Amino acid sequence: MSTVVWKGNFIYSKDAAHLNLVEQGYLVWENGISRGIFTELPGEYQGIDVRDFGDCIIVPGLCDLHAHAPQYAMRANGMDMELLDWLNTYTFPVESRYDDLEYAKAAYGQYVEALKESATTRACIFGTIHREGTLLLMELLEEAGIRGFVGKVNMDRNSPDYLREKSAQEALMDTRAWLDACGRFSRVTPILTPRFVPSCTDELMRGLSKIQEETGLPVQSHLSENFGEIAWVKELCPESENYGDAYDKLGLFGSKGKAVMAHCVHSSPAERSLMKERGVFVAHCPQSNMNLSSGVAPVRTYLEEGVSMGLGSDMAGGFSVSIFRAMSDAVQASKLRWRLLDEGLKPLSVEEAFYLGTLGGGAFFGKVGSFEAGFELDAVVIDDSRLLPPHTLSLRERLERIIYLSEDRDILEKYVAGEKIFERAVG
Amino acid sequence: MSTVVWKGNFIYSKDAAHLNLVEQGYLVWENGISRGIFTELPGEYQGIDVRDFGDCIIVPGLCDLHAHAPQYAMRANGMDMELLDWLNTYTFPVESRYDDLEYAKAAYGQYVEALKESATTRACIFGTIHREGTLLLMELLEEAGIRGFVGKVNMDRNSPDYLREKSAQEALMDTRAWLDACGRFSRVTPILTPRFVPSCTDELMRGLSKIQEETGLPVQSHLSENFGEIAWVKELCPESENYGDAYDKLGLFGSKGKAVMAHCVHSSPAERSLMKERGVFVAHCPQSNMNLSSGVAPVRTYLEEGVSMGLGSDMAGGFSVSIFRAMSDAVQASKLRWRLLDEGLKPLSVEEAFYLGTLGGGAFFGKVGSFEAGFELDAVVIDDSRLLPPHTLSLRERLERIIYLSEDRDILEKYVAGEKIFERAVG
Repeated sequence: MSTVVWKGNFIYSKDAAHLNLVEQGYLVWENGISRGIFTELPGEYQGIDVRDFGDCIIVPGLCDLHAHAPQYAMRANGMDMELLDWLNTYTFPVESRYDDLEYAKAAYGQYVEALKESATTRACIFGTIHREGTLLLMELLEEAGIRGFVGKVNMDRNSPDYLREKSAQEALMDTRAWLDACGRFSRVTPILTPRFVPSCTDELMRGLSKIQEETGLPVQSHLSENFGEIAWVKELCPESENYGDAYDKLGLFGSKGKAVMAHCVHSSPAERSLMKERGVFVAHCPQSNMNLSSGVAPVRTYLEEGVSMGLGSDMAGGFSVSIFRAMSDAVQASKLRWRLLDEGLKPLSVEEAFYLGTLGGGAFFGKVGSFEAGFELDAVVIDDSRLLPPHTLSLRERLERIIYLSEDRDILEKYVAGEKIFERAVG
Repeated sequence: MSTVVWKGNFIYSKDAAHLNLVEQGYLVWENGISRGIFTELPGEYQGIDVRDFGDCIIVPGLCDLHAHAPQYAMRANGMDMELLDWLNTYTFPVESRYDDLEYAKAAYGQYVEALKESATTRACIFGTIHREGTLLLMELLEEAGIRGFVGKVNMDRNSPDYLREKSAQEALMDTRAWLDACGRFSRVTPILTPRFVPSCTDELMRGLSKIQEETGLPVQSHLSENFGEIAWVKELCPESENYGDAYDKLGLFGSKGKAVMAHCVHSSPAERSLMKERGVFVAHCPQSNMNLSSGVAPVRTYLEEGVSMGLGSDMAGGFSVSIFRAMSDAVQASKLRWRLLDEGLKPLSVEEAFYLGTLGGGAFFGKVGSFEAGFELDAVVIDDSRLLPPHTLSLRERLERIIYLSEDRDILEKYVAGEKIFERAVG
């Protein structure tokens, strides 16, 4: 068992409203697990070689709670369209390409490379309906060292012919075959992925719920993203009290295992209360919610009500892989929400945005998103010297600047559960 | 007189709603002026060496209609504050540093370097109240080859002691001395820069108007950015019909020379109508308007009413130098405006956002922002190969991707009025 000691500037969340800012402190870790942060190195660790990161800033790896890997190939296209045009012109035709493993290899390769070079260490990722393509994506992520959950998408209704599973029964068989093939992965694990209520029959949903009951796997889907969708679900599920309740009645809303729902822009108090009761996570995707004119989720309300929450890139409703960008987008969106919609809900602070992208979302993956003792060692080493002005900044100011201005090229090294998965070539 | 012929993919605006997309066409220019774009090279230019840019995309240089150069040193700090806290904690203390020429040289040097590496070729820039610091900024811009207007800021009331001109008379004398010293510049020229109505006495304003009358210089300032400011101007100028009319009554609203006003988020119909009548330009600064919770300007209304308009970074209400970023921010902000405030105003298209950042804002500088014959040759050569997916994109799709995703490192060369001012070192 080898013990590692790092020296540097460490920043991590204490809670949603407070940061720990440790200037020239020590981080000790063993076997991929933190033993804690210290301002002075404790006697028991004296004598161990100290890796000195100088004036670099080290933060926990960022967590992306919602992304569609196949859509990376169409990111930043059709950003001036409305949702339905965008889906039909870009999303569905592009997703159908992943039946072709050559295309899948090239396109997923680009996405995984981008993820590897970013500050993200953990992610919840949608594939497509294609089993082999999804396995290929998992293989690429596994090799790259990114950890998290990947799902083969299920959709057996209200979708174009060329991108629809032929029946619930076939979809479930295919899903079980995919799960059997996932045994070979250790860093990425499967997650059940019904696209959303409108694209899945009740039979398919109930079958997935049964699989969740048998396997304990988590589930990911979409919830209350925009008004048209919510009205559609109400029509499809007249017996449900709300959209979340529709998932719940089908057994896929946290009652049988973990669940994360993307967006939740327009969730009613009853829906939010059910989410809290069931421990369902919200993946807040501010960039996507702007791009697709969905609106702005009331993040502060979720935080105050104690609903679990993290950030999502929603690649490619969002065009950026970066969760730093998601943090700054979350602050900006909360300000426009405050100005244009509801002055009762104060905009988000830097502390809150950083929390959502680290500890908040990290909880979906286990003890992830902090440097406290017992947390998995996910860390990003950032050289922000390029971003410094002629006068001195505090650590908090440097963090804010990293959130708004850093690019992948400022990342020197990245660790996931103690594995170094990225190191920038120098020069 | 040397004639230059370029071959490549050219994209430029036809008008606010339409793009010219010229695949593998020819651009001919002489003495810094375009002779036009051709799909086949006309006979008269046969025999001239053709510079072939391969599959690169070439767009007009981008125009930034509003930026505060001194605030680059504090960009992306205090972005979760409200306007007044932000001004007192960051803006005013940082601007006061530019009395120190050592600091000014270091900080302006960073800003000018960033501008040089960006896609921006023309800009309207605020300095500070300091004459020597502002001259230093102009010198650095002149050397870098950026063209446009730079202003020594005037403010003689309602500002902290350490950042206020002592009297209107002193301010005007200092401004005239600054103008005398500007004769040595050829690429950057001075622009009169009263900070905004609340920070300038009537005497100062009238004196500036007199200078404008004598010199024909343009003027830049701020207008109708947020509700508190508008109420304050109403109090200060009870005889004025609106904020724009306050400038007009003081002779600084386009009646004696060109004027550009930043923000115009909450301009009334009467104010907009006066702007149109006076030929006043709007500098739309969507990122700043989000960061400072100002709201979202009704861009489409201005376009429909025929008010001249371009984009501004508003460094450092905005944190990004990039006018590509301003384009994507403009689209996103227009979508939230549509969703949260007014469904009557359709969100902006890619065409419209690109127009604002090129031809729309370019008009403030003369024949700038297009490749049509007679326009000054401002051009940015972009290698977007890093951004391409495995499938083929149209030129329009590639442009959209450049707007949302390109970074400075994708720029190969940049020309301003025919001068090459930037070339990326290869390898």
